[in-house]
Amino acid sequence: MSRVWNFSAGPAALPQAVLERAQREMLDWNGSGASVMEQSHRGKRFIEMAAQAEADLRALLAIPADYAVLFLQGGATQHFAQIPMNLAGAGDSADYIVSGHWSAKAVSEAATYVRVNVAASGEADHYLKLPARESWQLDPQAAYVHYTPNETIHGVEFHNIPDVDAVPLVADMSSNILSEPLDVSRFGLIYAGAQKNIGPSGLVLMIIRRDLLQRAGRPMAKIFRYAEHAANDSMLNTPNTWGWYLAGLTFQWLQEQGGIAVIGERNRAKAELLYQAIDGSGGYYRSPVEPSARSRMNVPFTLHDAALDTAFLKESEAAGLLALKGHKAVGGMRASLYNAVSLEAVKVLTAFMQDFAQRHG
Amino acid sequence: MSRVWNFSAGPAALPQAVLERAQREMLDWNGSGASVMEQSHRGKRFIEMAAQAEADLRALLAIPADYAVLFLQGGATQHFAQIPMNLAGAGDSADYIVSGHWSAKAVSEAATYVRVNVAASGEADHYLKLPARESWQLDPQAAYVHYTPNETIHGVEFHNIPDVDAVPLVADMSSNILSEPLDVSRFGLIYAGAQKNIGPSGLVLMIIRRDLLQRAGRPMAKIFRYAEHAANDSMLNTPNTWGWYLAGLTFQWLQEQGGIAVIGERNRAKAELLYQAIDGSGGYYRSPVEPSARSRMNVPFTLHDAALDTAFLKESEAAGLLALKGHKAVGGMRASLYNAVSLEAVKVLTAFMQDFAQRHG
Repeated sequence: MSRVWNFSAGPAALPQAVLERAQREMLDWNGSGASVMEQSHRGKRFIEMAAQAEADLRALLAIPADYAVLFLQGGATQHFAQIPMNLAGAGDSADYIVSGHWSAKAVSEAATYVRVNVAASGEADHYLKLPARESWQLDPQAAYVHYTPNETIHGVEFHNIPDVDAVPLVADMSSNILSEPLDVSRFGLIYAGAQKNIGPSGLVLMIIRRDLLQRAGRPMAKIFRYAEHAANDSMLNTPNTWGWYLAGLTFQWLQEQGGIAVIGERNRAKAELLYQAIDGSGGYYRSPVEPSARSRMNVPFTLHDAALDTAFLKESEAAGLLALKGHKAVGGMRASLYNAVSLEAVKVLTAFMQDFAQRHG
Repeated sequence: MSRVWNFSAGPAALPQAVLERAQREMLDWNGSGASVMEQSHRGKRFIEMAAQAEADLRALLAIPADYAVLFLQGGATQHFAQIPMNLAGAGDSADYIVSGHWSAKAVSEAATYVRVNVAASGEADHYLKLPARESWQLDPQAAYVHYTPNETIHGVEFHNIPDVDAVPLVADMSSNILSEPLDVSRFGLIYAGAQKNIGPSGLVLMIIRRDLLQRAGRPMAKIFRYAEHAANDSMLNTPNTWGWYLAGLTFQWLQEQGGIAVIGERNRAKAELLYQAIDGSGGYYRSPVEPSARSRMNVPFTLHDAALDTAFLKESEAAGLLALKGHKAVGGMRASLYNAVSLEAVKVLTAFMQDFAQRHG
């Protein structure tokens, strides 16, 4: 069939131009007579591509020189555990801000490796609003502060970087990296599973301030140590070469779009259009999230009558609108609006929503 | 350019039919209107594909029902560490057979998590022969015995599965899995990085006897625990969906070839042809490895005069023969003959070698 309008929360839509290029180059990449997947990661061609991908990312986000960029594996979930292994020594504690499903999971995976202090939580508010910065019980001696700027399931997003003084700020940006301009210098460590705004699943991008690579952490195998990955240009072992390549193509595509400022404007416009369609529906559709905390990337919404959910999903799929079913923890619908989702896709969605409301009024 | 004859040690050649199918399906997989990379791993289409891939692998290797099959990340290197984390409790020791670069690395990554007993080593023989089974100093109380059936750098391969009595045998089969029929029931745990005989890098396949999933191991985050991955059908977190898909296509291709018995015969014939060309060259080419330990998958060889190495590499590349340079630890040349390397490719290589010897005699 023809390409659908894909609102998947992840693994999510990729830019069509990226897929088309990967398709063209599948059997003969870069004049090598072989696929990029069939190349040694230690070969000249692959190393050049890998370095260009990093350079393009550095340019897109204006990453300062005192930050290393790593291309890792394991998903963000593995790094929920690996970050405390690397950044916390014996007896250390770390502050965690719990704003939804993923930050809660970060806590549970970290707990084996660091004394976790939940400095603030939105749980009592069912994660429909964010715990106000003034309420955070931060420990100035913490090894780091961890938070999740965007929660994909609950659809809440921090719209400002919290000030945590001198303690390194660690952010799981899996679902909002590269979605708007970012002041990297405010962070100690940024990490992101690739499968939303970067590329295919199985790749994790990390941006880490180099001084944090000096921390001893706990005893661990070399393969878990970020400093080793940094010292080996992320080729301590065989990286996910296909993921790295796709990420590089996505970075080029972002540049061709005009860079992150342009993408940020587009993302703002996309989210506004959808929230307006929800808020302007006279209660037919509802956003459960407090307006100030609404995510630009993941928009959960409910129908006024949950009995209509099945019809909504069936008809939207028939109309070529993919993956609108909400997460089971929240129910209802969810539209994810990552970078590769066009403004046109959101227009098609909102038009469908209006039409559905009229027909099923 | 046209497709080359690819002898890369890994990431290695993939079957051309697999690449062509992935190319065709790149923008519209399985009638979904989206790439396989753009699908939720929790969606019906992906789950069906994933289950079929596992079923096909089980059929290919006749994997008994009391073994779980896992699709993981991190490369074999991460599992050098993760295996002792899972299989060894506090105070346990494990036996390691060191037969080359990779088994030595398995020891160093494991050492944080288990008391390593090097039960045998080929180091004194420069890893050019295998330590005889009679010489192994095994501990009947060991948590497991770890060995590397095939060493890609030194080109040595065990041609029989060692008997280690009741202690679970753990094998890093990254470079020889699926290359010949295998009696899985002889093993406690088999694992393999995908990038040689399975698919692209960034995926690790594991076959583990289910009773070993009951071991407590050491305290660790859930994401490191194989039992959790098994209980969640390898979807504890987002898997490498592209790698899984390519692995599934490769399993189908193996079936189309006639299964592993046919592949095993083909691999034997390929290796014989190349070793005959080396041994029959009157000393122009030499294999440094003891004949009984020669690998079918990775064939290192030297030229009688190392001053000819540069010319050999330049001319072979010009003739469309890719990645013949030996590993820097060994020098000379190396041809890797994984499943996707055809008998025809080996014929082209041996013809080139004979021609080169005549011209540079």
